[in-house]
Amino acid sequence: MSAEQNFSDSQKFRIEAITLRSGVRFGPVEVAYETYGTLNPDKSNAILICHAFTGDAHAAARHAGDGPGWWEGMIGPGKAFDTDKYFLICSNVLGSCKGTSGPMSVNPATGQPLGLSFPVVTIQDIIAVEKLLLEHLGIRRLLSVAGGSMGGMQAVAWPVYFPELTHSSIVIAASYRHTAQQIAFHEVGRQAVMSDPDWQGGDYYGKAVPKRGLAVARMIGHITYMSEASMESKFGRKLVGKEELGYTFAKDFEVEGYLEYRGQSFVDRFDANSYLYLTKAMDYFDLTEGKKKLSEVFRDVKSDFLVISFTSDWLYPSSQSQDMVRALKANDIDVSYVELKSDYGHDAFLVEFEDQSRVIRNYLTRVEKERVLKTQA
Amino acid sequence: MSAEQNFSDSQKFRIEAITLRSGVRFGPVEVAYETYGTLNPDKSNAILICHAFTGDAHAAARHAGDGPGWWEGMIGPGKAFDTDKYFLICSNVLGSCKGTSGPMSVNPATGQPLGLSFPVVTIQDIIAVEKLLLEHLGIRRLLSVAGGSMGGMQAVAWPVYFPELTHSSIVIAASYRHTAQQIAFHEVGRQAVMSDPDWQGGDYYGKAVPKRGLAVARMIGHITYMSEASMESKFGRKLVGKEELGYTFAKDFEVEGYLEYRGQSFVDRFDANSYLYLTKAMDYFDLTEGKKKLSEVFRDVKSDFLVISFTSDWLYPSSQSQDMVRALKANDIDVSYVELKSDYGHDAFLVEFEDQSRVIRNYLTRVEKERVLKTQA
Repeated sequence: MSAEQNFSDSQKFRIEAITLRSGVRFGPVEVAYETYGTLNPDKSNAILICHAFTGDAHAAARHAGDGPGWWEGMIGPGKAFDTDKYFLICSNVLGSCKGTSGPMSVNPATGQPLGLSFPVVTIQDIIAVEKLLLEHLGIRRLLSVAGGSMGGMQAVAWPVYFPELTHSSIVIAASYRHTAQQIAFHEVGRQAVMSDPDWQGGDYYGKAVPKRGLAVARMIGHITYMSEASMESKFGRKLVGKEELGYTFAKDFEVEGYLEYRGQSFVDRFDANSYLYLTKAMDYFDLTEGKKKLSEVFRDVKSDFLVISFTSDWLYPSSQSQDMVRALKANDIDVSYVELKSDYGHDAFLVEFEDQSRVIRNYLTRVEKERVLKTQA
Repeated sequence: MSAEQNFSDSQKFRIEAITLRSGVRFGPVEVAYETYGTLNPDKSNAILICHAFTGDAHAAARHAGDGPGWWEGMIGPGKAFDTDKYFLICSNVLGSCKGTSGPMSVNPATGQPLGLSFPVVTIQDIIAVEKLLLEHLGIRRLLSVAGGSMGGMQAVAWPVYFPELTHSSIVIAASYRHTAQQIAFHEVGRQAVMSDPDWQGGDYYGKAVPKRGLAVARMIGHITYMSEASMESKFGRKLVGKEELGYTFAKDFEVEGYLEYRGQSFVDRFDANSYLYLTKAMDYFDLTEGKKKLSEVFRDVKSDFLVISFTSDWLYPSSQSQDMVRALKANDIDVSYVELKSDYGHDAFLVEFEDQSRVIRNYLTRVEKERVLKTQA
């Protein structure tokens, strides 16, 4: 991984130790986080932004000269998450490699990277760390928690596990549990990483990284993040650097070059072990915990919901969002659902700013009004 | 690969040399083929069966004690391809590893396997070899040519490149060209194979085979062959060999075990280089050759068509079959199109025998009647 990364000037928060869902006690936990906007005196304008799989704490630029964040189009003065109104917090998730503790972190006892001795973590563990960060910041209740994809899993889990702690939840391009197909795509990626001889059981730090396996894993991911239509309109059968088919196993098509580029560049910015840990956390995610009905899951929820899905997202299809919406409604929870038209597939939550902004801006205005009414009542 | 394989008692036909689409002259070409039923005296009852990607010449059992073929449910006395009526021919495709010449074949000049010195072949080359086989068998015109997936590509290509040589074509779960997404899935598979250090530039015969890379490639394939619904109903989130999540990177879910099994067993029955060559042949497939409109492609076609697609096939979706149907109709070609309801995804053509049989049996009866009428006219 390259040394120059956007999250490098994130703030740090340290937790002595936490007990994970697995029962393992783990610590210390370092958390990298950033904030945007100003916390108001009664601390009622805080929104937690949850990042997706390979994201980080740097959701938006914070000052002149700061690099753009992964949700730059959504966060800032006058934007959907309006920094003139709201105080936004984004932290790197547990198990990642962008400043928060994960397999790349050094074990204080040995001075060596933890590798696979880092414990397997879950979405529930990830939000438990986020909760401790909010306590540290003195925030008792969130105005909202929002995120797409793995960020959406956190956003839907928050009001389930911490019902008193958020007024609303914005769940984008996500699901309440991983399906067999979603697990399958992740498992193939993990197998690609783990079958790279350079992976060495996760003990590759300071040696050759398993870049071939990780690149293949990322290539698979990218196919699932795009829609068939967007691949077709972006690449079709366009050739790359040649006029005719080459009749060799070198690249012929632009789409092959794109995947190679995406695979190679990923290797420079993400840790292979974190790839394993975070895909596992998503695969383990199931709000029903294999026991309850989904409608029972939401029984004690006190939060309102905004659920957004995208027409061409086949990885987290609208039907999965609609399952959540039905189960929320069955509990008389105030839920708004919007299916946005987009050709961008699952990637839409990272690129379709205009429609998402309109929906989220209106929703947050309503949530804020209702919060004030409730406080006055 | 295991020594005991179904195709081992296929018949053999030898071609001195052929000129490939790439311009390369290649020979000798050995062709493994099987036949079922009896060729009638005027040689008018011949149907060419084209196999899919990893298939072989053994489409059905030929005698007591013979193992079942890959389309056993479709071929035999009284079945859709009725061996009491028709004479069926199935040959292993050029570039494969099941008896017909491919990268595993030995170079007569060196006594060594060809490996990557085997030339890149196309669907057009594959059907050119099939045409030579039919000439060898004395068949001047086929009653039909039929196949699913890569077999369907051959079936749609036959009447385009050899318009005088077939009365009808049965194209199942296929397309007239590979799209960016289809190329992308194949390219990731190829990268998985080629990034396995054991691949050795294709020169691994007699040494360690690139089994890890090939297994990953096959796992990706299997996800695309199944529908999301069939994965969910077959596996869902069922755990494998445990009552609780394991919190390790060993398998947790049945779907992971299934993919591992499919990947591992594939390594024993298929050659990694043939995987590269045949995915490339499919990716190169484009009847428009990047220049023509699809309707122009079918301008000189003299064959009738039956096109079949399956509702849950997202790898070769119905829309692609419908594009072919529209272009055929624009040329006043007699085309029947049936979209069969199935949850099996792309695999449906290998498992949904009942509906396919009904449709194909009726279609072949009609083709046979029209052939007789045309002959009498």
